[in-house]
Amino acid sequence: DITGPSQAKIFGLTERLVGTPQGVSPGETRTGIKIISMQLLLDDPKKPTIWRGPIINNLIRQLYLDTNWGDLHYLLIDLPPGTSDAPLTVFQSLPLTGVVVVTTPQDLAKLIVTKSVNMAKSLNVQILGLIENMAYIVCDHCGEKMEIFGRPKGEQMANEIDAPYIGAVPIDPKIAELSDNGMIED
Amino acid sequence: DITGPSQAKIFGLTERLVGTPQGVSPGETRTGIKIISMQLLLDDPKKPTIWRGPIINNLIRQLYLDTNWGDLHYLLIDLPPGTSDAPLTVFQSLPLTGVVVVTTPQDLAKLIVTKSVNMAKSLNVQILGLIENMAYIVCDHCGEKMEIFGRPKGEQMANEIDAPYIGAVPIDPKIAELSDNGMIED
Repeated sequence: DITGPSQAKIFGLTERLVGTPQGVSPGETRTGIKIISMQLLLDDPKKPTIWRGPIINNLIRQLYLDTNWGDLHYLLIDLPPGTSDAPLTVFQSLPLTGVVVVTTPQDLAKLIVTKSVNMAKSLNVQILGLIENMAYIVCDHCGEKMEIFGRPKGEQMANEIDAPYIGAVPIDPKIAELSDNGMIED
Repeated sequence: DITGPSQAKIFGLTERLVGTPQGVSPGETRTGIKIISMQLLLDDPKKPTIWRGPIINNLIRQLYLDTNWGDLHYLLIDLPPGTSDAPLTVFQSLPLTGVVVVTTPQDLAKLIVTKSVNMAKSLNVQILGLIENMAYIVCDHCGEKMEIFGRPKGEQMANEIDAPYIGAVPIDPKIAELSDNGMIED
């Protein structure tokens, strides 16, 4: 996500990356996860990247091609919602194994995520599975579970798009706190 | 938000709009709110709009210029997050009074919203105020208030960006339910 980059912050990376003859060396977290993000290439992290689609498309290709990744088990690409330039470029230009779809229990989210799924299918990109985020929250006072965005319907949606259902993730204030402190790995 | 349109659904509008010599007539809700959305112009609502930036930019201008709005008190434009084509086109091409900034209590959201604010300022677009969404939730079992994304910091952020603080909005399951049923006006 070029214009809303969050990975560097949640993993606690702040050091600006520099180029080498072998390409840009990615940042590396405490547990050895290599990360590259627009956030690590800007001289001022609060500066907006006011860039139209064609620049974003080039940047995505560059982040992929010009980074000295070394050996990797997996390469995960975090995309913004929607079906415009960033996902389109990733789906068309990078050698993907497939996409993992993330939705929430609202019908509204389902409507918009269905569009992304149909985009992936029309470009022959495989759907690896579906995750339902923000499925519920457990009250830290009384321990009751609340389905704040309606009854989870991830399994049903996974069936409808003919993809494996990976699971449901609750809203957990600890994750928000750890993200804000750059300690998401904990 | 061209690629993730949600207004038609939450207001319960489904009838496809058609053009007239005076321009496209917008949809109209029970209480008289006129709405135009990509969702009302597609022949299949599940179809993705797989469009790169230049098409999105033209569409935004068309939705504004080629709609037969009649007299309006206010015209609100719902934008996707980020600082790419859609907000850039709206900020540069439409005669705006200003923007209302919506954030959440996470530092992460603050980081990304700050980029949008800096984009608006660099284009001389006035910030009309700041709203903090998802500020808290009230447990429907015990009535306790939980700050699920951390301590609200909207007032502090409004000060930092030198804009009026409009207020905090909780997560309310009733809003999610009404949105899904197309009855957000209730």
